[in-house]
Formats: sequence, C-alpha cells, structure tokens
Amino acid sequence: MNAPINAPINATADAASLATASAAEIATAVASGAVTARAMIEATLARIAAVDPKVNAFTDLTAERARASADRIDARRAAGAPLGPLAGAPFAVKNLFDVKGLPTRAGSKINRDLSPADGDATLIAKLEAADAVLVGALNMGEYAYDFTGENVHDGASRNPHDLTRMTGGSSGGSGAAVAAGLVPIALGSDTNGSIRVPSSLCGTFGLKPTYGRLTRGGSFPFVTALDHLGPLGRSVADLAAFYDAMQGEDARDPGQTPRPFEPVSGLIGQGADGLRIAIAGGWFRSRALPEAFAAVDHVAASLGVTQVVDIPDAARARASAFIITAAEGASLHARRLAARAEDFDPAVRDRLFAGLAIPASWVDAAQRFRRHFHGEMMKLFQTHDVLLAPTTPSRAPKLGQKTFVLDGEEMLVRPNMGLFTQPISFIGLPVVAVPVRVDAGDAPELPLAVQVIAPPWREDLALRVAATLERAGVAAAPVASL
Amino acid sequence: MNAPINAPINATADAASLATASAAEIATAVASGAVTARAMIEATLARIAAVDPKVNAFTDLTAERARASADRIDARRAAGAPLGPLAGAPFAVKNLFDVKGLPTRAGSKINRDLSPADGDATLIAKLEAADAVLVGALNMGEYAYDFTGENVHDGASRNPHDLTRMTGGSSGGSGAAVAAGLVPIALGSDTNGSIRVPSSLCGTFGLKPTYGRLTRGGSFPFVTALDHLGPLGRSVADLAAFYDAMQGEDARDPGQTPRPFEPVSGLIGQGADGLRIAIAGGWFRSRALPEAFAAVDHVAASLGVTQVVDIPDAARARASAFIITAAEGASLHARRLAARAEDFDPAVRDRLFAGLAIPASWVDAAQRFRRHFHGEMMKLFQTHDVLLAPTTPSRAPKLGQKTFVLDGEEMLVRPNMGLFTQPISFIGLPVVAVPVRVDAGDAPELPLAVQVIAPPWREDLALRVAATLERAGVAAAPVASL
Repeated sequence: MNAPINAPINATADAASLATASAAEIATAVASGAVTARAMIEATLARIAAVDPKVNAFTDLTAERARASADRIDARRAAGAPLGPLAGAPFAVKNLFDVKGLPTRAGSKINRDLSPADGDATLIAKLEAADAVLVGALNMGEYAYDFTGENVHDGASRNPHDLTRMTGGSSGGSGAAVAAGLVPIALGSDTNGSIRVPSSLCGTFGLKPTYGRLTRGGSFPFVTALDHLGPLGRSVADLAAFYDAMQGEDARDPGQTPRPFEPVSGLIGQGADGLRIAIAGGWFRSRALPEAFAAVDHVAASLGVTQVVDIPDAARARASAFIITAAEGASLHARRLAARAEDFDPAVRDRLFAGLAIPASWVDAAQRFRRHFHGEMMKLFQTHDVLLAPTTPSRAPKLGQKTFVLDGEEMLVRPNMGLFTQPISFIGLPVVAVPVRVDAGDAPELPLAVQVIAPPWREDLALRVAATLERAGVAAAPVASL
Repeated sequence: MNAPINAPINATADAASLATASAAEIATAVASGAVTARAMIEATLARIAAVDPKVNAFTDLTAERARASADRIDARRAAGAPLGPLAGAPFAVKNLFDVKGLPTRAGSKINRDLSPADGDATLIAKLEAADAVLVGALNMGEYAYDFTGENVHDGASRNPHDLTRMTGGSSGGSGAAVAAGLVPIALGSDTNGSIRVPSSLCGTFGLKPTYGRLTRGGSFPFVTALDHLGPLGRSVADLAAFYDAMQGEDARDPGQTPRPFEPVSGLIGQGADGLRIAIAGGWFRSRALPEAFAAVDHVAASLGVTQVVDIPDAARARASAFIITAAEGASLHARRLAARAEDFDPAVRDRLFAGLAIPASWVDAAQRFRRHFHGEMMKLFQTHDVLLAPTTPSRAPKLGQKTFVLDGEEMLVRPNMGLFTQPISFIGLPVVAVPVRVDAGDAPELPLAVQVIAPPWREDLALRVAATLERAGVAAAPVASL
C-alpha cells in the first residue's frame, strides 16, 4: 500500500478531479501519494461549499477536524507508516450519530438544546481508525420518523437528480450527499426503510445490514428493536469496504449480536452464478407504480431469474412493524411530547401522540407475530439464497407532494414509501438497495432501487448480487449533474 | 441417614401421628425406618380425604403416583441405598404447575380442555429427586389474577382457621393445604403477592425467592416479568430444605438468572444478631387495619428494632406493577378472551379486558421506573440488611366480602390485599412471610403475616430472621383445629 515517501504530497489538481471519485479510488490515490489526504479534504470541502446549497444535505461541517485528520494521515505516510484501507476517503453521517462537539440533533429542534456530544459514535471511530475522514453531519427527517427527507427545522434535503423532488427519508441528507458527489459514502440509519428509501429516490447503493450486526453505540435511537445503521454509497466495493471497517463488537450497544469478523470485500467479485434467486411475489407485486415492478423485472432478467415466490403475511409484517414503531417511538419521546409538543414537526408529533395510545397487547401480538414471521422466512431461505423486491412504490415524488395513487387508490406518501421495506427490516434481514434506471412510468430519467434481500448474517450474498448487477451495467449510481 | 434395613417398614400408627408433622420430622422418621414412606402417604391421603372437603384445597389427587413413589423410596431404603433429604415428605402444588397426566388448569375452566401435561414442572422433578412425594394439585385463583382464593369454577378454598373466611390468593389452596395440616409444604406462585397473601391469611410461612432464582419451567405463566415460584410451609426449616432442593439452573426458563448453588438450610440457625434491620415506613405505615401494624411492631420489638426507614415512591412502584401486570396478563390471554370470554370468571375477565387497552407507552414508563426504583432500593440496602413490612392490610376477610375500610376509605378487597406486597415483588426482592398472632383489631385469634424483606439473592438473611422469630415463639404456623 505504501508509495515511496518522496512521492508528491500536494496534488490539488488531482484532488479536485477525485472529489467525486469512489472511496476506493481516493484511498488508492492517497496511499500511492498521487494526492494528499489534505488536498482531498480541501477539494471535498470546496465541492460541498459549491454544491450543498442546492441539495441541503449537510447540517454541520467538521472542517477543522477533517483537516487535522487529513494532516495526520499525510504525516503518517510521510513517516513511512502504513495507512488504513480507507485512507483519506471523506465520509459524512446522518445527524443522529454522535459527533464530538456537536449536539446530536437527530433532525429535531428540541435536541439542539442538548449538550454537545463528548465523544463520537463507535462507527465513526471505527471508520477513522481505517483512515476515513469525517467531514460533517447530514440532514434527516425529524427523529427518523420520516420517508420524505422534508425537515421543517433545517429545510428539506433536495434530490440531486431533480431539485424539485424529495430525497426520501429519513436518511435524506445521506442520499443527497452521496448522489450529489459530496462524499463517496454516508452513514444512515434504517428502522423501517430509512437507508433504502433515500437510496431508491436518490439512486445510490445502500446497505441495511442484519439487525444486530453493526453497533449503534453513540447514536440517537428511534425504535431499539428495529434500528439498524449502515452505509449509502455509489459503488458496491465502497459499501463493502466501509461495512468491513465497521464490523466488530461494541459494549455500547447491548442489542448487538456477537458475530465473528466476516469480511465481504474479497467476496463481492464472486458473481451470482449458482445462487438461488427469486422474485418476491404477493404483497411485493401490488400497490406500486409500473416503474417499481419494471425495475425488479429488469434486475431479474439480467440475473436470469424467473421464479416468483410468495411471502405470506407480508401485510401483517408491515402492520406489525408499524405498531411496534409507533408505540416504541412514542414511548421514547413521551417526556418531550409532554414538555415541548410545539417544537416537534406537526407531522411527526401527531403520529407520536397517536403512538402513545397504542395498547401494549397490540405490541405484544406484533412481537409474537414477528417471531412467527421470522420462522416462516427462515423456511423460505432453506430453498432460496436471495429475494428481489421493489424498494419504493415510486420514483422520487415532488417536494411537498402529500399523496400518490397506487393501484387506483390515493394514498399518503409519507407512510407508504415504506410499503416494501418495512416487512423486511421487521425481521432484520440484510438488504442491499440497488439503483437502476428503467424506461417505464413517468420521469424515466430518475432512478429507483431494487431490494436484494438475503438471510440473516449473509450480507455477502446480497453484495455479490449487487456487484454482479453493477458489473453488468444494470445497476449504477452516477453523480448527479448539478 | 440409613437405618438398619431390617427396621420396621410398616408403621401405620406412627404415620397417622406424623400426618401433620413437619417435612423434616417425616424425613427423619422415614430415613430411620420409624415409618415407611408408603405408610406416610397413606396417612396423608387419609387425612386429605377426611379434611379437604372442609377447606377445598385440592383440585386433583395423584394418589397412585404417590404410592408408587413411596414404594420406590421404601425399596431403596430396604436395599440400603441412601435416601434424599426430603424422604417421604408429602407435598402438593398449585394447579398451574404441570403434573404429568393432568391438564394444567391454572384455576381456569378454559385450560381444562388442554391436553394433559406430558411431563412435570421442573421444580416437581427436583423435589422428587430429593425423595419428596407429590400428592396432588391445589385450588387457586383463576389464572393467578386474584388475592381472594375464591375460584368460581372449583369453589372457593376456605381458611382452615375460620371456614367462613378467605384463604387469600392466588395460591389459596396452597395456604389452606398447609394450614390444615394436609401437607407440610405446598408450592405456590407469586406475581404480586400470591404466595405472601395466603401465607398471611392462612398463617403459614411463605418464601417468595429472588426473581430469577427458581426455575419456572413447566408452569403456566401470568406475567413473565414478575412471576416467581416458591414454597409455603409450617416451619422455616422446611421452607429452607425445600428451597435448597429446588435451586439450580434449568434451560426451560429463559428468564432464570444463573446463580451458584447457595444452600440456606445450614444458615438459618445463625440468628439475627448483627443484622441491620429496619421497619419500612411511609407507604407501609398507612392504609391498613391496626393489626397489620401491630404485627410488624410485635416482630420488630422481638428483634429489638426501632428504626423506621421510608421507601420513597412505593406508591408508584405498586402502580407500575399494576400496569405491567394488567397489560402483560391481558396480552397473554388475548386469544382466550376473544374466543371464550364467557368461560372466564367475570371478575378476572373484566380486569383482563381493561388490560388489553393499556398503552404500551405506560408499560414502557413503568419498566423505566422499575429500573430506577430498583436502583434506589439497592442504595437503601447498602445500609440495611432486612426490612420489615406488613403483608396484608387485614386478617382474612369473610368469603364473599367485597370491600374493607382502610384509613377511613372503603376499598375493594380483591386488588388491595396486595397493597404492601406489590411494591416488593415489583423489583424481585426475596421475602419470607412470617405468620404471627397479635391482640389487636377484630378476630385476634386469626393469624396474619409480616414481610421480612432482603436484598436480591439474600434469601438466607430473610430466613435467618424468620427462624429467629420462630425460635422466640413470635412466629408460628400451627395446624388449624378442624
């Protein structure tokens, strides 16, 4: 990895051209000395300054911290010390991650009054240990209870492919930052679809790992039983490299499941041959616009997949996820609702107030069903390795759009963007959202994503399929023209 | 332990006189050959046949099984094999314990339609491994949601000290069987006071161990987060011996906390000198009849205790226990309520229906408070070893009595018999209910019990204090005259 220590260490011109490159390309350039980490960070900060006002992805920049990190990386290289695998690659985090010195706002007005975090979220520390460089915190839906990316306190994040459209939520700033080429990787959180929905609307790859795999230490929770953290990026290799750097146990998250380190970066080139892949049927073939099914069919055709399998009880799985989310989320915020109701986004507040009244017996029934549904899905995975499903029922709606018509029924956008993501995260399955473009429906120039779903702890299978689609040119996450 | 194998093995006359003896006396007699186990069981069955119709403690007899067990014990002794420490001691169990071949009715009409249990509860197996002999299953309040012992399906169990009065619940048959001298030990369950309340009303010793100590494997649940199993008996030594035989891990109860085997039988003679004992104040000094406080004061005086400590938030602890109980209990029975509401005791059914509507956010708040209250009590136990509190606010009410007047307020008997027990089991503290007689209030000939409360895992401390009071003649559990 180490280039001669007398290689050029001030290559600003290269850095500008690398500002929208992949993390892998940046790390290679930094490790080889073709560009300095400091120059990469300056180029990144310059691009953010120029472009972010259009997309409103960032709520906080950590410029001085990033410069200091970059300088340390350059100094280490100059001293001949080995660099980490993500050397100089900039990244940003949804603003529910603790960042030392910033209040962890979690998209809210209320949390801004908190004391600044006295340390970083564990995943940030792990990525910095691999020499990635944190450049800032990202816009998100209030308290993550959102699929639109429209934040009333910080303003909506805007879709880089069409600034009049939503990013999706709740990790809307994460999707926008990646699609706009501000950072190659952004971290998000996904309780019911909050990584996958913005990946679909913004056209990025997104990885929601198995529930319990990556630590949530130092992040602001939403629904402990359903919260996942994970990366959004523009290439499968970057997702895999960042995911590998984030694996490992952490006592700060008591909900984490101890697992061996199972690196996937070396596996994603293995292709999809021999994998038993099927299209999710039933629930996953209705209540969506034609482009959602066209996207799945396009991916399936590329993989030579024709089999459709029903997933029984998916509707009940989604309803159960709704109940658990509303009840646990409301409980988490009960004291804030009592003290500062007027400081919530009304759209969030009203759902939380409703959640306060959900009977515990409903939650218990939902949890019981969850165990049953998990068992049924495990049976299905005895004969299948990967399932394909839509991510969102539509491409990015217009900002401010309240409803869409699915199967002839006018439905609310905000809750229903998660129609297809909720039943999957409900039982914690790993998913890669794979962005595609299809010539069906309105606005065919806009992306949307397909969910590539694997059994628990088999992120490798979903990533192998995603990488296969990327190599075939079926899936791609180009930087938006801005 | 082994007497000569040619000792008498058919000593029916002795057995009849031992039928109301302690388990320790019976085990000694059986081990020495003074009486056979078979003779003991025949005497026990004869006494049950004669006396149980008055108190209605038993719902099922396991006579043939008991005879077979006794014969095996006698055969082992005849062969010179060592006998267990409870050799030949009869016991019975609340009918929510699985007994092979019986449906586990749990006091209900509905459960009678279940298939007979295909095995025994783990605690029964442990006691039989120590050569105790199961003789039957005992009457209880429907689904354990009861403090009266009035079962509408099996008839009320009746207080052996006054057949017109309640036994207390929900382990009413357990209290009646022990106080009537039908068995020296009966097992019960205690979610909010269901071992301690009948111990108080029937005048028996009762041990509710630390939450998580004894396995609940093979018993019908009520509120998993609060359910405890434990013994009622007429002597502290018997409680300790049965408790010791029931310790140990069991994979059938995932809520059990792994603990080393910590036998207490050898410790109960150590006395109470040097223990820092206090009277629980505040909540525990109001809303009771004078005899409840007189009982505590009598015990305190015997121990030389004068200090009174407040237990802050005990009212909230009780309310929180109520919320968790109603919500989780309702959830457990939701399907039965939907399918067979008319087959419930109306008094139980209406509480369960109400429980179905309790918001999950209330349950979450109750669970959060539980952790706080636990922490506060642990602080108190840094300076105290044992606390004394009333068990019930009154002696045994009349059967059918719906209300009593506490501090000038007319209150329902059914929920309020647990006023003083609920805040303690809420955080799983070990308690020995110690029966006393005091010359205060109405019906001074009737017993009532004082709670001797210890920190988690320190059953030994509560048992030492109970044994001290027993030796002093302050606490006693004589067989009722019937």
